Parts: sequence; C-alpha cells; structure tokens
Amino acid sequence: MKINIKPAEGKLGILIPGLGAVATTLIAGVEAVKKGISQPIGSLTQMGSIRLGKRTEARHPKIKDFVPLANLNDIVFGGWDVYEDNVYQAAVNAKVLERDLLDSVREGLESIKPMKAAFDKNYAKNLDGTYIKTGTRHELAQQVMEDIKNFQKDNGLDRVVLVWCGSTEVYFEGSEIHETLAAFEQALLDDDKRIAPSMIYAYAALKLGVPFANGAPNLTVDIPAMIELAKLTKTPIAGKDFKTGQTLMKTVLAPGLAARSLGVHGWFSTNILGNRDGLVLDDPDNFKTKEVSKLGVLEDILRPEDNPELYGEIFHKIRINYYPPHGDNKESWDNIDIFGWLGYKMQIKINFLCRDSILAAPIALDLALFCDMAKRANMSGIQEWLSFYLKSPQTAPGLHAENDIFKQLIKLENTLRYLMGEDLITHLGLDYYDDMFAGQ
Amino acid sequence: MKINIKPAEGKLGILIPGLGAVATTLIAGVEAVKKGISQPIGSLTQMGSIRLGKRTEARHPKIKDFVPLANLNDIVFGGWDVYEDNVYQAAVNAKVLERDLLDSVREGLESIKPMKAAFDKNYAKNLDGTYIKTGTRHELAQQVMEDIKNFQKDNGLDRVVLVWCGSTEVYFEGSEIHETLAAFEQALLDDDKRIAPSMIYAYAALKLGVPFANGAPNLTVDIPAMIELAKLTKTPIAGKDFKTGQTLMKTVLAPGLAARSLGVHGWFSTNILGNRDGLVLDDPDNFKTKEVSKLGVLEDILRPEDNPELYGEIFHKIRINYYPPHGDNKESWDNIDIFGWLGYKMQIKINFLCRDSILAAPIALDLALFCDMAKRANMSGIQEWLSFYLKSPQTAPGLHAENDIFKQLIKLENTLRYLMGEDLITHLGLDYYDDMFAGQ
Amino acid sequence: MKINIKPAEGKLGILIPGLGAVATTLIAGVEAVKKGISQPIGSLTQMGSIRLGKRTEARHPKIKDFVPLANLNDIVFGGWDVYEDNVYQAAVNAKVLERDLLDSVREGLESIKPMKAAFDKNYAKNLDGTYIKTGTRHELAQQVMEDIKNFQKDNGLDRVVLVWCGSTEVYFEGSEIHETLAAFEQALLDDDKRIAPSMIYAYAALKLGVPFANGAPNLTVDIPAMIELAKLTKTPIAGKDFKTGQTLMKTVLAPGLAARSLGVHGWFSTNILGNRDGLVLDDPDNFKTKEVSKLGVLEDILRPEDNPELYGEIFHKIRINYYPPHGDNKESWDNIDIFGWLGYKMQIKINFLCRDSILAAPIALDLALFCDMAKRANMSGIQEWLSFYLKSPQTAPGLHAENDIFKQLIKLENTLRYLMGEDLITHLGLDYYDDMFAGQ
Amino acid sequence: MKINIKPAEGKLGILIPGLGAVATTLIAGVEAVKKGISQPIGSLTQMGSIRLGKRTEARHPKIKDFVPLANLNDIVFGGWDVYEDNVYQAAVNAKVLERDLLDSVREGLESIKPMKAAFDKNYAKNLDGTYIKTGTRHELAQQVMEDIKNFQKDNGLDRVVLVWCGSTEVYFEGSEIHETLAAFEQALLDDDKRIAPSMIYAYAALKLGVPFANGAPNLTVDIPAMIELAKLTKTPIAGKDFKTGQTLMKTVLAPGLAARSLGVHGWFSTNILGNRDGLVLDDPDNFKTKEVSKLGVLEDILRPEDNPELYGEIFHKIRINYYPPHGDNKESWDNIDIFGWLGYKMQIKINFLCRDSILAAPIALDLALFCDMAKRANMSGIQEWLSFYLKSPQTAPGLHAENDIFKQLIKLENTLRYLMGEDLITHLGLDYYDDMFAGQ
Ligand SMILES: NC(=O)c1ccc[n+]([C@@H]2O[C@H](COP(=O)([O-])OP(=O)(O)OC[C@H]3O[C@@H](n4cnc5c(N)ncnc54)[C@H](O)[C@@H]3O)[C@@H](O)[C@H]2O)c1
Ligand SMILES: NC(=O)c1ccc[n+]([C@@H]2O[C@H](COP(=O)([O-])OP(=O)(O)OC[C@H]3O[C@@H](n4cnc5c(N)ncnc54)[C@H](O)[C@@H]3O)[C@@H](O)[C@H]2O)c1
Ligand SMILES: NC(=O)c1ccc[n+]([C@@H]2O[C@H](COP(=O)([O-])OP(=O)(O)OC[C@H]3O[C@@H](n4cnc5c(N)ncnc54)[C@H](O)[C@@H]3O)[C@@H](O)[C@H]2O)c1
Ligand SMILES: NC(=O)c1ccc[n+]([C@@H]2O[C@H](COP(=O)([O-])OP(=O)(O)OC[C@H]3O[C@@H](n4cnc5c(N)ncnc54)[C@H](O)[C@@H]3O)[C@@H](O)[C@H]2O)c1
Ligand code: NA
Ligand code: NA
Repeated sequence: MKINIKPAEGKLGILIPGLGAVATTLIAGVEAVKKGISQPIGSLTQMGSIRLGKRTEARHPKIKDFVPLANLNDIVFGGWDVYEDNVYQAAVNAKVLERDLLDSVREGLESIKPMKAAFDKNYAKNLDGTYIKTGTRHELAQQVMEDIKNFQKDNGLDRVVLVWCGSTEVYFEGSEIHETLAAFEQALLDDDKRIAPSMIYAYAALKLGVPFANGAPNLTVDIPAMIELAKLTKTPIAGKDFKTGQTLMKTVLAPGLAARSLGVHGWFSTNILGNRDGLVLDDPDNFKTKEVSKLGVLEDILRPEDNPELYGEIFHKIRINYYPPHGDNKESWDNIDIFGWLGYKMQIKINFLCRDSILAAPIALDLALFCDMAKRANMSGIQEWLSFYLKSPQTAPGLHAENDIFKQLIKLENTLRYLMGEDLITHLGLDYYDDMFAGQ
Repeated sequence: MKINIKPAEGKLGILIPGLGAVATTLIAGVEAVKKGISQPIGSLTQMGSIRLGKRTEARHPKIKDFVPLANLNDIVFGGWDVYEDNVYQAAVNAKVLERDLLDSVREGLESIKPMKAAFDKNYAKNLDGTYIKTGTRHELAQQVMEDIKNFQKDNGLDRVVLVWCGSTEVYFEGSEIHETLAAFEQALLDDDKRIAPSMIYAYAALKLGVPFANGAPNLTVDIPAMIELAKLTKTPIAGKDFKTGQTLMKTVLAPGLAARSLGVHGWFSTNILGNRDGLVLDDPDNFKTKEVSKLGVLEDILRPEDNPELYGEIFHKIRINYYPPHGDNKESWDNIDIFGWLGYKMQIKINFLCRDSILAAPIALDLALFCDMAKRANMSGIQEWLSFYLKSPQTAPGLHAENDIFKQLIKLENTLRYLMGEDLITHLGLDYYDDMFAGQ
Repeated sequence: MKINIKPAEGKLGILIPGLGAVATTLIAGVEAVKKGISQPIGSLTQMGSIRLGKRTEARHPKIKDFVPLANLNDIVFGGWDVYEDNVYQAAVNAKVLERDLLDSVREGLESIKPMKAAFDKNYAKNLDGTYIKTGTRHELAQQVMEDIKNFQKDNGLDRVVLVWCGSTEVYFEGSEIHETLAAFEQALLDDDKRIAPSMIYAYAALKLGVPFANGAPNLTVDIPAMIELAKLTKTPIAGKDFKTGQTLMKTVLAPGLAARSLGVHGWFSTNILGNRDGLVLDDPDNFKTKEVSKLGVLEDILRPEDNPELYGEIFHKIRINYYPPHGDNKESWDNIDIFGWLGYKMQIKINFLCRDSILAAPIALDLALFCDMAKRANMSGIQEWLSFYLKSPQTAPGLHAENDIFKQLIKLENTLRYLMGEDLITHLGLDYYDDMFAGQ
Repeated sequence: MKINIKPAEGKLGILIPGLGAVATTLIAGVEAVKKGISQPIGSLTQMGSIRLGKRTEARHPKIKDFVPLANLNDIVFGGWDVYEDNVYQAAVNAKVLERDLLDSVREGLESIKPMKAAFDKNYAKNLDGTYIKTGTRHELAQQVMEDIKNFQKDNGLDRVVLVWCGSTEVYFEGSEIHETLAAFEQALLDDDKRIAPSMIYAYAALKLGVPFANGAPNLTVDIPAMIELAKLTKTPIAGKDFKTGQTLMKTVLAPGLAARSLGVHGWFSTNILGNRDGLVLDDPDNFKTKEVSKLGVLEDILRPEDNPELYGEIFHKIRINYYPPHGDNKESWDNIDIFGWLGYKMQIKINFLCRDSILAAPIALDLALFCDMAKRANMSGIQEWLSFYLKSPQTAPGLHAENDIFKQLIKLENTLRYLMGEDLITHLGLDYYDDMFAGQ
C-alpha cells in the first residue's frame, strides 16, 4: 500500500540561518547544477539509486525518479547571517569553491542578501558580526516569522523549509525551560538567556509549520519543547549535526569492525582545519558541543555494555585543531587500536584529505528535500529515517540512536520503499536457491 | 516457522588441506580458548551477538547461544601438507603466535601430524615440500577419501567438514572438464593436469557428503561439476578466499562511499608481507589468482554500469609485494581518490598494520561451524549467506556476487533468524513513531 | 695538535634523578649489553664510527675506539626518585622492555634502590610519590651532595656524572634569583619556591665538580647562575631535553627542506602516548615547558627573518595527547605543508611508530660518557658540541642555537677530531679532482 | 685566494633534449619569474643563501649575489623532442601548471618550437612520436652540433649549456664502445645500436665545449669515453638523475638514521604517478634504469659493510606504479623498519604528496646555471660538487658516490666559498667558547 504524498508542485524556498561555507557551497552548487556546469555528487537524492524488488528484476531507479521530490529548478534560496556579505562575497571568503566556478554563477549569488540575524554573542564568542536584529527573544522570534512569511510571499513560494547552517553554539544542557512548549514560550517572553539563537529560528519555523533541519551539534530542535511543537503543527524535524569527514568514516568503519567481532582498545581522532568553523571551534565551549556530538557514535555502534570483552575498555579521544594553512580542507587522522584472534593487536590508520563543506552541502540539500517531502507525506515530528545524514541523530524518547550508517541507509531506503508501496528488502534471498532445503 | 536442524551432538572433525599459517593459528587458538588462556576474538560464531525482535525488546543473544553450533570442546583437528612438520613445528615456523602461547598448548599441537598431500608442483612452484601422495588424480581422490574415513573412525567423530587452507594455486580458467560431474570424473581417471590439487580434496569431500569451504582464491568448488556433485550428495559448499586485511577494509569502505553517492576516480592498493603465502604470491601466476579475486569486489559494490557519473572511470590497481622484514604482519596501504559535490576531489589513505592469519583463523572456524550446521539443516549447494566471509563469493548462476559486507551481514543474520523462526529485520522501525502519519 | 685527555681509568658512577622509563631502560640495557644479550643500538658512542682523513684512506674507526671513553663494564648506576620502587620494579611498571629481558638482568636491577628525592609537588602535580627528602632547599642541596659523595665512596668510584631523567617540571621563566650564583645561593637559603627541584640536584653536582646533563626541558642548568658555577668549578654542563621521536625527525627533515630552498606554510605535529611522562604532560603547565622546547627548533633551522619568502608565514603547532592504549609506544603524526617552484603546494605526512624510551636511553648514555670525557679533557661550561642530542641546546650567550642535526653532527665529529689532533673535514674534496682547474 | 671566474656577460642559451613535463615547467616558470608573477621556489641559486664567516658575523648573502651566475633575464630556451608540440602545447598536455599561469606567458612559450629529435624507439618503446631526425648516429651527432651552433648564432648567445630532460632510456650496461673516445667515435660511424640517443646529444655538446647535465638515470655522460672528451674540451659534466620526491626524502632521512646509529631492517618504497614519465617507466626495461639509480642511495649512505650490526641485513624494495588518476602529482609511500636500543623495533611511514616536475624544474635550472659558471671558472670534467642535485652522482673513478644530501650540501657550499676565497666552514666553533679549555 502506497502512502499518499502531495505532489511537489510550485516553488520550494530553502531558508538558511548561517550563510557561511556550507550554505554558500550549497547555493552556488545548486546554481551550477541548474546551469549544467557541475554535478550534484554526494547527494543521494540527486545521484543515488535504489534497488527495488528481487535482484534479478534489475530495478534500480534514481531516487529522484522514485519518490516525489522538489526539482532543483524550483528551489529559491535565502537566509540570515551576522555578516552583511551577499552570498557571492561570502562564498569568496569561505574559499571552498574556485573563483572560476563562482564567477559563472555570480549574478544569482549576488542577488541573495542575508537578512539580519537573531544572535547572541555569548553563544559564539569568536564571531564579531554586527548585522543583527534587536529585541527580546520573543520579539526576535516574531521578526523571524515575518522574515519567513515575507520571503514566501515575495518569491511566490508554495512551501518553505529551514536548514540551520549557522556556527556551532556553546555547549549547555537542557533545563526546565526546554521541557515543555509552555515553559519555552514563557522563557521567550522573559528573554531568557538559556534560549540559544538557533532555537529562535527553529521555534519560528515550527510555529509556521515549516520543517526544520539542524546541521550543527547545538540542541536546537532536540528538546522536548520543540518536539511538542512539531507534533502540534504537524511539522517534520531532523537533527543534529551533518555527518561528514571523520565521523562519516567512523560510522562506516566501526560497523565493519563490529561485524567481524574485532575488539577495539582505543580510537584516537584528530583534525586540522582552518576555516571560520575551525575558528569558532577553537573556543573550548563551542568545541565541547561538537565533541559530545562526535564522541557518541562509537558507543552506540559498538555497545560496550553488551560486548565487554570486545569494547569494554575502549579509549576514545577526539581533537580539533585550528590550523589556518588548510583553510576549508579539513584533514583528519585516526589511529585505531584493534585486536583479533587470541587478543593479538593490529592498528588501522586513516588519513582523510577531506573538503568539509563539499561533503556537507549535499547533505543540507537532501535534508531540505526530504523534509519537504515528509511534510507533504504528512509525516511529523522526529524523522529518524534521516539519521543517515546526522552525527547525533534524534530518536524517539527511550530509543538508542542508531549510528551505524549502513543500518541508517537501510532504514532510509526501506522508508522510501514503504512510502511508495514497494516490498521492503531483507537480503534474505533464499528464493534464489529454490532447492536449498530440498531434502527437508 | 522454524527450520528443523539436527542437534550438534557428538564430535566434529575439521580437516584442513594446508597446515600453514592460517591453519596452525586456528588450531593453536582453539586449543588456547579451550584451556581458557585466550579468547576467540574475531569469530562471529563465538563472540558475536544478534539482535532479535524490536529494538525495545533488547534481545541480543550470542550467536552460539541462538543457533545450534558445534561446541569448541567437541572439535578434533587434522589435515594434510606437503611438509611433514607437526602442527607445533609448523606454527613455530609460521611466526604468527608467540612462543609462550604455543608452548602452553604444545602437546596438543604436536600430536597433530599432517597426512601426505595430494599435490602437483605446477600449481605452486615456490613450494618444495616432498611429503606427497603418489598416483593418478583418480587414485589420489580415493586416497583422500580413505584419509577422511579413517580420520572419522579413528577419532570417533559424528561429522566432518573440510576447509582448504592450502597455498593459492596458479591462475587458470575453467574448461570443459570442469563443466559437468561426468566430465570431471572422466578427467580424474585420465589424470588430467587441468584438475588442480585442491579439487581432488573437494571432490573427495563432497563425494562423502562432507561440507567443503575454500579459503583460497583457487576455483576448487567454484565450477559447475562441483556444484552438481554438492547438490547430488546434499552437501553445503562455500567459497572462495577468506576476506581479510585490505579487502575486508575495501568491502567496508566502498559501501560507505556508495551510500553517500561519492564518486571514485581511482583506488590504489598495495601490500607488503613476508610469510610463505607472500613467497608463493611472489610468483606472478599465483598472484594472478589472488588479483582476480581481489579486483572484483569494487566493481560489484560500486556498479559502474549503473552509476557511470560516479564510478564509470575508476582506475583500480592492486599490488602485493614480498617483503620479508614484516613476516606474517601483512601491512596494506590504500590511496583512494574520491570526488564530491561539483566534482571536488578528496583523498582517503588507509594504512592497515594487520596480522593476516589472526584475521583469517576465526573465519576458517566460523565457516567450518556454519557449514556443519547447514548440513544438519539440510541446506545444500552454494551457501551464499556465508559470502560475508569471502573475497570472491560464489552465487547462484546468473546472480551478481554481493560484496558489500553490510548486505552480506544482513543476509547472514536474516538467514539465522529465518532458520530459527524469528522475524526478519528491515530497520524500517516506523512502529516506534506511532503517530508519524497521524494526519493521514 | 692533540688535546690532553686524562685516561678513563677506574669506575664511573652515573647518578640519575628520576628512575622512570628512560632511566630504567638505560640501566637494564647496559646490563644486558654487558652480559652480551643485546646491543646498544642508537648509541653513537658505542655503535657509531667516524671518518678520518681523506675518503680514499678508508679510515672509519668506531668512536669508542677513537676517543678515550669509559668502558660500559666500569659503569655503576644509582639515582633518586619520589617512588621507592627498585629499578627492576620501576622497569616492569614502565612497560618499555619485555619481561624476558628484564628477568635476565633482574638481580642487578633489584639491587639498585632509589635515594629519596628532592621534590616539590608544585612542579609536577600529577605525581603522588612520597619517597621524599625534607628540609629547606639549601638543606636538600646539602643532602644531595652527601648522597653523591656516599655513592662515590661506597662504590669505589673514580668519577661521577649526573643525568636528569626526572619528569618535566612546570613552565616558568628565569627571574633575578637565577641570574647570579650569589643570588641563587641566597635563594637556596631562603627556600625560595622559584628554585625547581631539578636545580637542587644540578647545584649539588656542579658544586662538587660533577658534570650534569639535563634530559628534560626544564631550565635546570640553563640559567646564568649555573653557567657561572660550572665555569667556577670547571665542570661541563649539557642541556636540555633529549632529542627523540618527532623532534628528532623534525631536525632531520627541516634541514632537508631548507637545503632545497623549499618553502613551508605550516607544520602540524601531534603525538599520542600513554606512559607516566604522558600523564605528567597532560597537565597544561608541564606541557608548556615541553611545547616551548619543541617549538623552537623549526625557527632556528628555517630562519624566517632571513628567508621571509620561504618561511615568513609558517604556522607551527604541536600537540601531545595522553592516550593510554599506546603506553610507552609514543606515536607521532606530522603534516607538513610545503611549496615549491612557482609556489605550487605539496604535503609531507610522517607517521612515526616510535618507542620513546628506546630512543632516549642511548642518548642518556652518550651524554654521560661524553660529559665524563669532557671533564677529563678539562672542558668546562656549556658543551655546545653535544647539542646533537638535545631538543633545546644551550649555547654561548648571544649565539643562536643550532638545531640542524647534521650541522650538530659535524660539530660533534669535528670536535672529536680536534681533540684527537685529526684534520677537520670540510667535504670540499677538490683534491680528488687534481686537474679540475687545469686550464687556470 | 679567490678563483678567477669570467663574468656572466651576454646571453646564456639553455638547450633541452626532451621538452616534456620538467622542461616546460622550467621554461614557463622562468618566464613567469621574469614577469614577476611567481617566485623560483626550490632553486638554491635563486632563493638560497649561504653563511659566510663566523656565526656572529651574520653574513648570509643570497647565493646569486655571492657567485657570478647568469641572470634569469639573460636566458634563452630551446630544445628537441620527438613530438612537434610547441612549449605551450606541451606544457598544457603535461598538466603540471595551471592554465591561468600558462596563459600569462603563452606567447613566450608558443615561440619555442622543438627541433627534430635524435631518437631510437628501442630506447623508449612507449613513445610514439615521429618528429625525428634521420641518418646514422654519426650523422645525427653532426646535425645536433649544427642545431646548437645555429641556435647560438640565431639568438646572439654568449654561451650555451645542455640539460637532458628526455625520457628515461632502457637499461643497459656500458660496453667496450663506451670505454674510450676513439672507440665511441668509431661506433658512431658504425651506427652502433649500443649508442643511446642521449649520448648523441652529449657527444655533440661536449665536442663543442658546451657543458652537459643529465636529469635522467641513463648512462649518457657517465661513461669513460665522455669523461675523456669532457677533459679534452675542458667542459663540465654533471649527472645523473634529478634528485626529487622519494629519493630526495630518502637522502634526507637515511643520514638522520645513520647519525643516530639506528639500525634499519627494511625499507619499502612505492610510488604512484600518472604522467608520461610514469607511462615510459611502466615498461620494465625503462624502470630497470630508474630502479638501479634509486636503489643505490641507501647502500652508500648506510654502508652495510662497515656497519653490519646496523645495516647488514637491510631489505630495500622500490616500486613505481603507473596510476593515471594522479597525473604529475607523484605520490610516494615509504615504510621504514628501524630498530634501536637493544634491538627494539620501530616504524616510520612517510607519505609524500609530491609534484614531481615542480621539484625537478628548479634543479634543472640550478644545474644549468652552475655548469655555466663552472665553465667560466675553468672547471672541467665531473662536477662532484653538484651531486647535491642528483640521485646517482658521478664521481672520480674509485670514489664512492656520496649520497648524504647534507654532506653534498656542505661540499657544494664549501666549493662556492672556496671559489670566492672565503673560509671553509667546519662547524667546530670552539672559538665561541674561548675559555673552554681554560684549565689546560
Ligand atoms: N562543513 C562541515 O562539514 C560541517 C559538518 C558538520 C556540521 N557542520 C556545522 O555546520 C555549521 C556551518 O558550518 P560552516 O563551515 O558553514 O561554518 P561557517 O563559519 O563558514 O558559517 C557559519 C555562519 O553562521 C553564521 N552565524 C552564526 N551564528 C548565526 C546566527 N545566530 N544567525 C545567523 N547566522 C549565524 C556565521 O556568521 C557564519 O557566517 C557549523 O555549525 C558546523 O559545525 C559543518
Ligand atoms: N592469511 C590470510 O589472511 C589469508 C586471507 C585470505 C586467503 N588466504 C589464503 O589461505 C591460504 C593459506 O594461507 P597461509 O597464510 O596459511 O599460507 P601458508 O603458506 O602459511 O600455508 C599454506 C600451506 O599449504 C600447504 N599446501 C600447499 N599446497 C598444498 C596441497 N596441495 N595439499 C596440502 N597442503 C598444501 C603449504 O605447504 C603450506 O604449508 C592461502 O591460499 C592464502 O592465500 C589467507
Ligand atoms: N622518553 C623520551 O623519549 C624523552 C625524550 C625527551 C625528554 N624526555 C624527558 O625525560 C624525562 C624522563 O622521561 P621518562 O619517560 O623516563 O618519564 P617517567 O615519568 O617514566 O620518569 C620520570 C621519573 O622521574 C621521577 N621524578 C620526578 N620528579 C623527581 C624529582 N624531583 N626527583 C627524583 N625523581 C623525580 C618520577 O617519579 C618518575 O619516576 C622527562 O622529563 C621527559 O620529558 C624523555
Ligand atoms: N620529474 C621529476 O621529478 C624527475 C626526477 C628525476 C628524473 N626525471 C627524469 O627527467 C626526465 C624527464 O621527465 P619528464 O617528467 O619531463 O618526462 P616527460 O615524459 O614529460 O618528458 C620527456 C620528453 O622527452 C622526450 N624525448 C624522449 N626521448 C627523446 C629524445 N631522444 N630526444 C628528444 N626528446 C626526447 C619525450 O617525447 C618527452 O616529451 C625523465 O627521464 C625522468 O625520469 C624526472
Ligand atoms: Na606497490
Ligand atoms: Na591532536
């Protein structure tokens, strides 16, 4: 049985708080793809295919041909930032894409000017931008709602989604004001400092029924108040922290080690990067937010409590080092101490010469497109099937997050199959061996 | 509905052609585990657990407690080699395990003396062993059958399985004599040189209904004649080439790249190793067999024909270098040239300080135990669900091999669930979000 | 003309404050070498040779056969520590050497029991040893002098040298009390907290005319007061910080880059280690001392002020991470961003799977032997020719330290040649080409 | 006393057999430098400085300001190739330099058109160029002499030098025709196939008194006949094989290990590259020439015969793999197995993301400039002081080649000091410590 999904007619607005490296790489890229200059590599929605039916049927449609997603030509971008640079200038500063490429889509980028940010410097001390809204948190939320509505009207949009691509905010833990929608709304009125700027955007979006995805490790929509609001307004949410670089590799490799029941003594991960993200993360308070997000994945995948002989004593350490010579070319190095048969030790070393925003941009795109589709399919609240894209995925209360990227992928694919009324795939495949149990 | 599996009562003989590094590491290891000195890390059957039911049920039994496998205490080892060394001596020569460990199980190992090998030097020129049977290929097969029967009788065994751990044989392609059982049996009588020694063991085993697993990349049971014989005698077969080291990593990593629709320009893999396996593979003809086995995996996982923009021009090169200073500590180095969003290039470099036989021994164990269980479950012919363990897995004619280790794992696990009458797992999990489509 | 050097007759005592990983590896190693079990690899004095005369003379004596060094058989070890463990126990705890080796020299090691330490916990907060002398700093110095004299008498020694192998002390900069001997001696009487424990040992040694080498990055003898005292008592001093691991590699590689006029944008160095040294350095104050010592070398070798186009903007970052899984097997990873012809960028990555104390022990030995010889040659004060062994070498006031290990080696070798009246080597070698300027 | 060197007046022609990656990178680079667009990084003559006098004098002039070298503005380039592409086209094909840079000097490059090559396909089977001279070897030599004279006349040149940047020729060993000039000249007349094309150019140059440097590992001028001719015509020669990439690193690192008396068990070196050089070296006969050149360096530096305990059993293996995805970005990976104190093992792994021609071009420039200066200084025959630049340096008969890059550098620098009448530097430096032996 197929789920009823409204068609992706009309235009889709993608609004982005934080027009930095990731956002400008996304926007410039989509423009280049629309012009036929480049390809949206790394985007599952655009490049990926999905197997349907039995292996022998050889059905592998592209995902964008299988489920009803918005077409890239129907997308309009906008956003907010604490710096006034238009998207072209911001992209030039970010130094991710080559000048040639940017120049080929310059006009489109220049026309996108940020709206003033809802900001509080206490949440990102290393930023000195001054293009900032004023008012209490409640007033800021109202202003952001106005921004969204105006953007929709001005651009003749059918639908809008928000994707947070702002800097990582400082670490803090949820408190009573984040527990219920009522408490949160009161705190907005009280201009309570415990409401992070990202939450103001999220609140504004959800209030309007606009889906919200969170690319940073901040709590943002990962608090009970926001989940309550999402259910209330029937809005999908997805968070948190784009899964790129080292963590991507980790959630690929750790399942491989676990699959083979290989033990892990230690995992040391270090990174060098020199972009603005790196600068913000050079502040220990902001790094803490990222560290917590990055540390969790191993524990979930390896489950030390269930496998004490293999993973009971794992020592996991993560470092991020601000290193300007590399700019956006984040480079990671991992040393993994494993042990096998009879406890014999081995080591794996991985050096990833990565390009951070190149990996993140297509994730931002996919999250936007899938959230929009989810909304049209009447799916609301936490979209666990999108955890494939996230370092620290939200789940139903009481559920362990699933960080194994391959289980996440099966979940995503089987969700798509389910929506479209196709058979789920179990990889059992005994039917290819009809006579397997012949003697039985 | 649960499949009927005969219980694992009585003793199980594991007979191994090729008592070299892998085999002696396996045997010494099992002895050490039985004595409580070491743990069988890396063995899914012994250390691995399997999730059953819903996530919230928290059912994760060990695999050995879930399906009826032979107990390690009921195993008796034996084998053949072209060198007369007993298993203790062979293990000392192999330099995989530390002397201390070997000495703690010395007596048990010394008591295992090889039987004379069925051998033909043309299949492994770098070997100079002389502990060899004489006769035509037909006669050799009869002798091996006698060996198996005597071994079973002398040790009071309930069941036997064979696992090929002999050297990699030279490369050749199947010909008409490998096409049908009748042609093969005639060729045995003709002492046809195109029958490789490994096939003599395989034929003898299958003829007696004894399961056969192949740890090397030689054809052996991967020819129509053997599949025919396996079906005839209702015997499980599994091949070929233990998946360890670099290829293990490759089948972990490549699915991760494919999952994220990242493109691959090139993949360069080189290895250094200094054991006897390395010496044999220093002969280009033997290396060819290994190379073919190792090269295949990427193509299957990335499917260039279906994803030409991502994988259409991949350049894949594999080298194995004989490097005595490292002994059995095979070390691999991979450089992977990938590209992402808009074609931007990135590189991944992996340096695996591996211990080859440490990774292979538990695979040999698991294959033996699962093949024995398959026989008791009345499963016969190709056991595709064991492809998890193999570099170049056999499949039903007409099916692409599945090399993605995570799909292989799901297949293995769902096969076990199926056998035991448990629900298959699809990772859909929408039931945790009851109200997901509330509005529908 | 040959310098007059007193022969190395009688016994030499090597006294070591800090009987930890380095010291016990040194002591156990010398014992094993004396028993003929092992070889003193990595020690230039024991294994190295020196070229003399013209290339065609083929004169390459071992250094120990060229200059009059104490024989290993004439060495007696002793030391101090804040823990009471004898050297065997301490060596077992340090986990550097294998149990088998330690057991083969157990008796000799067990007989070496530490003397109580001169210690102040403010200089190493992560240490909790309690085997500590009491008294004012002046009294402690007197006690250490007594220790030295008793040790010499009890063991019938001809000469003694001290080599600091104690933990790295917290970072601080020299102040007025370190400026002159008079001020320093007053501060001792005042029990001034600015006198680090290591200085107490150094003072005691120099006062007695006993050479002192400093294996840690603490100031210790690198203050004017100590240099004054060394000249006064005609005693050689050498410091500071054994040059091992990553810094060793850096002072090898950086001269290579500079030789070829290759530019350097950035150099990122990270380390993982899990021994007690790592634990102490996990305290930021102690790490600071190490960091300063390690950072200096690049600047000296590359001289950014003289080569602004090549090295003017180098970004140099060093990290040390406490990572218990690796124990004493310190592992370093460097990423070096270089540029060549027309500014084109290249990268060098170095992964050193090092064994820290294995590299340090022979340095400690060589410094002890050379300092003893220097004393017999009547050389006093700073021994710049020993900077070959040191991360942060002391030099005459006003001179840049020379950190290029190859210039350091030439200096060391030419010093030896000078002492023995041999020709210095310039590598000009035009004499091999007699007719080179024939036409002139 | 200063040597008399004719001033570098007038124009210098640099003629290059082989206008491929290295040559075009050199030519384009010099043009860009002349226009002030780029800097000649990696060229010691242009960027390097030299210390003169005592350290305290702080005299560090640039080398080009110290010795009388030709000015870059006075250089005119020309050359030969088997392909007819002009230098701009050849540079574009070589894919070393960015299009932007090439376009900024396009005119100059386009005006340089190759002369027809003296070629024999047997010496480079993977080349299919057809822009080739015809005639016997003797006739070809005459034609090349005409080419040189015409080039000098047409461009109004004061002096000319030749630098071989042609492909690596197949491996062969010298025979009787290479022993004497007379035999060689007879062989030219006989059109003897044992005369490699590169020798034809070398012969032509030397005959005219034109210096010749050899950037490839072919014998070329490294035969007695050529040395005889060089002496006869008072012409400097320098060869062979530009020292770049992995070998550069090796001659930096190996001296470092030897300095510290660290043992070496094994050294495994592998390379991946995808340019035309790589294609030619994919032929085993051509690779052989390169391999011999690359293998020699370790032996010379470590001298196993003199240090059997340290280097007696070193296993050294070198691989070059043609890997198109990397183009000219040759990447090397080394694994070095070393041992230290008591034989304990350590490993060093080096991954060099190199740009081959970027490293080679400035070497070609320096060799040309220094050879020209040597000629003006009346130096003739083998210029061992230029071995700094070469993988397999020529030396006086009976002398071991010196491959330690730091000794080579001292030799080069002291040669320059010698020529200019400055003191040689020994790094003894006792004069900074006047009172060192005060007590003596
Ligand atoms: N690049 C990646 O691979 C990657 C991966 C995972 C997560 N992330 C996260 O994505 C986010 C964006 O990364 P980036 O590399 O683009 O960083 P960036 O620093 O280039 O861009 C962030 C932008 O957000 C703006 N900003 C900060 N606070 C804001 C606010 N309250 N309102 C509006 N704008 C605000 C900043 O001014 C900046 O321009 C970061 O949180 C980062 O941690 C990035
Ligand atoms: N070690 C691994 O990780 C690994 C992984 C995949 C596959 N394999 C394969 O497993 C096999 C065994 O590997 P190994 O490291 O133990 O090698 P090995 O050389 O140590 O042992 C192989 C043994 O087989 C014996 N042999 C050869 N031909 C024989 C014959 N006809 N009959 C009986 N004995 C014979 C040899 O004498 C030798 O003792 C090889 O084919 C290898 O390629 C090993
Ligand atoms: N291992 C190397 O490669 C290396 C290289 C360069 C420098 N170093 C330096 O050498 C020193 C020793 O290194 P290690 O690895 O042996 O460390 P370690 O921690 O194993 O040993 C140091 C010992 O010094 C003792 N100690 C500390 N303060 C003391 C005091 N005041 N008096 C007497 N004993 C005292 C400690 O109790 C400890 O036992 C450290 O400073 C280290 O930074 C070591
Ligand atoms: N690039 C480096 O780092 C490096 C380092 C050391 C040595 N080398 C050597 O330098 C040489 C040039 O390297 P490259 O990368 O420029 O190679 P390349 O293949 O790009 O250029 C070589 C050119 O020589 C031409 N050629 C061949 N035989 C010729 C002949 N007889 N007469 C005239 N032209 C001839 C070829 O057609 C080609 O254009 C090679 O021998 C290489 O091994 C290069
Ligand atoms: Na290789
Ligand atoms: Na780090």
